[in-house]
Amino acid sequence: MYITVWNENVGQDCEAVRAAYPETLHGAIADAVRGKDATVTTVTLDMPEQGLTNALLEKTDVLVWWAHAAHDQVSDELVAKIRERVLRGMGVVFLHSAHLAKPFQALTGTSNTLCWREAGERERLWTIDPAHPIAKDIPSCTVIEHEEMYGEPFDIPTPDETVFIGWFQGGNVFRSGVTYKRGRGKVFYFQPGHESHPTYRQPEIKKILYNAVRWAYNPNIEQNAPSCPNIATPDEKL
Amino acid sequence: MYITVWNENVGQDCEAVRAAYPETLHGAIADAVRGKDATVTTVTLDMPEQGLTNALLEKTDVLVWWAHAAHDQVSDELVAKIRERVLRGMGVVFLHSAHLAKPFQALTGTSNTLCWREAGERERLWTIDPAHPIAKDIPSCTVIEHEEMYGEPFDIPTPDETVFIGWFQGGNVFRSGVTYKRGRGKVFYFQPGHESHPTYRQPEIKKILYNAVRWAYNPNIEQNAPSCPNIATPDEKL
Amino acid sequence: MYITVWNENVGQDCEAVRAAYPETLHGAIADAVRGKDATVTTVTLDMPEQGLTNALLEKTDVLVWWAHAAHDQVSDELVAKIRERVLRGMGVVFLHSAHLAKPFQALTGTSNTLCWREAGERERLWTIDPAHPIAKDIPSCTVIEHEEMYGEPFDIPTPDETVFIGWFQGGNVFRSGVTYKRGRGKVFYFQPGHESHPTYRQPEIKKILYNAVRWAYNPNIEQNAPSCPNIATPDEKL
Amino acid sequence: MYITVWNENVGQDCEAVRAAYPETLHGAIADAVRGKDATVTTVTLDMPEQGLTNALLEKTDVLVWWAHAAHDQVSDELVAKIRERVLRGMGVVFLHSAHLAKPFQALTGTSNTLCWREAGERERLWTIDPAHPIAKDIPSCTVIEHEEMYGEPFDIPTPDETVFIGWFQGGNVFRSGVTYKRGRGKVFYFQPGHESHPTYRQPEIKKILYNAVRWAYNPNIEQNAPSCPNIATPDEKL
Repeated sequence: MYITVWNENVGQDCEAVRAAYPETLHGAIADAVRGKDATVTTVTLDMPEQGLTNALLEKTDVLVWWAHAAHDQVSDELVAKIRERVLRGMGVVFLHSAHLAKPFQALTGTSNTLCWREAGERERLWTIDPAHPIAKDIPSCTVIEHEEMYGEPFDIPTPDETVFIGWFQGGNVFRSGVTYKRGRGKVFYFQPGHESHPTYRQPEIKKILYNAVRWAYNPNIEQNAPSCPNIATPDEKL
Repeated sequence: MYITVWNENVGQDCEAVRAAYPETLHGAIADAVRGKDATVTTVTLDMPEQGLTNALLEKTDVLVWWAHAAHDQVSDELVAKIRERVLRGMGVVFLHSAHLAKPFQALTGTSNTLCWREAGERERLWTIDPAHPIAKDIPSCTVIEHEEMYGEPFDIPTPDETVFIGWFQGGNVFRSGVTYKRGRGKVFYFQPGHESHPTYRQPEIKKILYNAVRWAYNPNIEQNAPSCPNIATPDEKL
Repeated sequence: MYITVWNENVGQDCEAVRAAYPETLHGAIADAVRGKDATVTTVTLDMPEQGLTNALLEKTDVLVWWAHAAHDQVSDELVAKIRERVLRGMGVVFLHSAHLAKPFQALTGTSNTLCWREAGERERLWTIDPAHPIAKDIPSCTVIEHEEMYGEPFDIPTPDETVFIGWFQGGNVFRSGVTYKRGRGKVFYFQPGHESHPTYRQPEIKKILYNAVRWAYNPNIEQNAPSCPNIATPDEKL
Repeated sequence: MYITVWNENVGQDCEAVRAAYPETLHGAIADAVRGKDATVTTVTLDMPEQGLTNALLEKTDVLVWWAHAAHDQVSDELVAKIRERVLRGMGVVFLHSAHLAKPFQALTGTSNTLCWREAGERERLWTIDPAHPIAKDIPSCTVIEHEEMYGEPFDIPTPDETVFIGWFQGGNVFRSGVTYKRGRGKVFYFQPGHESHPTYRQPEIKKILYNAVRWAYNPNIEQNAPSCPNIATPDEKL
């Protein structure tokens, strides 16, 4: 399995982010998803072709996407290529503020807006679907001591599956882990992971990322986009 | 529209329940769903045929069900009749501790177990699907000052729609308002409504009950159960 | 209710189309959805702002979209405006070859490709969800004597509801009527309606269009797009 | 993985069935699901405890159920035990006329009635969800030369996933392969397999059964039923 972790890596040179993730945010995410079954690459927006050359995208089985401040800088051409590869079978995991990432909006068809508050409050992440592969070995309730609050209403399509729901100390709830199928590809959105809190170091959260990437992996990615064949001859007599 | 409110009415003669609902619990529920478009009847478990004669069941367009202590006393025969009528088009609203009511289990196919705590804590009921008819004129967040906590994991099928999610002061979350279609009938489960808190007097909660009954109403209830026809002659040449 | 019927109206001056729809295709569709509860307008791609001025779009409660040859000519700016208005509550009905219309792709997130054959073969349209408002007064099976075949695999998200499935004489099947919720708006895709067959004159098909528009109507369209509010002060003590 | 194939084995001593399945119907099904990763047992209704002792049920990871004439003979007690084990994580595959099997009805909450015709007509089984594990290595269309027709309307809940849709020569369609989650268990219903046609010898059908059992397998079956815990102490201060 070939995993590519994409991070916009914009504005992450402030002290708070460096304190939480001295090895960079994408480094921490890569660390969480690593395994003997996987090769992991990290790329950033400032690299050639915004980090995702055609060759790398074709090689990628599961893409993990973290973004916050630079959604608008991602080219529509790249968005279209990502969506097209997901429809052929690539898995994709959108993290935290990537709810507003263009590729996620292009796959859901919705705005994916939500309510939010930066207060470093406590989140309790409840496992709603305990038999789901993404919840394997995850307890009923995972406490994250400090997180940014993301709250409902979350403007997403009815999820195929809701795996986690978050409780926030300040009084809000959120569908924190949801799945969709799009074409032959699987999509997972996961809410925790504000850049100034070390959420991606927490063992349960690392395990969820690890599980999510394995769940999203489809070994049979198609070489070509779904096409629109004209079947000239019917199978049955007309 | 003919609405029947069914209440087991067992153990509701204690002081706390009488204080919260001097007019009885089913009386308060009937009051919430009443309207010019509806005739409302209340019945209780101790009545002949456990409150639901065949004639009344055939007349009922939407059934509202509150139960807690006496689930086991409801006869399997009545459960089968209720399910059969729902499949023909009767709407049904299960309230609070009716999550363990036999007719709800018979319609979901699951145990519908959950976690719970009686601490009279604060609930915040979040509207997840603001355009849903059941959420009409309901704010984003409704605060219930004192409720019994119902928490995830809630062992239900993936809902067709999740309209509300509850936040509890003690740290829990819950899918508090969920819908299912079963045959031609619509099913709504709604969590608030512990017998010793005056939840069903709160205007937003009354409005949700009112809306739910209208949403569940199918004017085209079938006279007969779906059958299993043998179509002897095919429509097309074999 | 204000209904706008949009037709690309490209290549519909050939003899076959004029024979099937002397009053134009959009005229026939407008005729089907008309009612005392509705004002109906028809517009075409060649009109100013591609037929949908901001003023008209703001006035439209339900948009009906027929297109085939000119999907690419619809501007991305208009697609974005349509999607944004659907998320605020406008209903939209996509007909037949509009499966590849950009606004439908933008709302589903998928390619919506399918298999097809022009052989004027018989279709049998089966009602899968008989209690659905779109299927009101529609028989179990509607025979369309001559239709273009659209066949699976149809690359769409798992529908919220599948109302109709089509059988084709030549051996294919198709999810012919499917619904989605996107934001506060409702979306219906309906397969029948090739431009050279008088499908939209058939009473059952007209009734389905009529029903679909009423189902999609949300009287509470928001004035503004869902936004992303920063809730500075938590509701509960941190 | 421990697979148990249950067959009512009633009325299968007629010539047509013996011709199609000289090794018995359950023998053919067992043959299809066998693999190095699995131990397969076959049991029948006439065995002690109707073939499913508590010990065998506790050992079974995936249950495959074929039944037709003797649904009523299955005890309600056994139905309850099967449902309870599915909720704890056992997978279950219901085949063909098991649409009316009591355990399937108990898990869906619906009647599962359908239309039918015994004419030995041709079925075309279309793969709707080509990336689904149950469709692995299955072509877009599988032709079954002679099958009993099962047609819509099929009175089931909205499936979590629709994997196959069947086309019948005589003019009908059917949701032929559908999945549900119930508690921690996975449920698959699959339509082909009339007892007098050798459908379960056809390589594609055998492969679907093989895949379905692997898909339904949950290695983490719970020892105990989901319970209803009273959480006396809240996690957060009240």
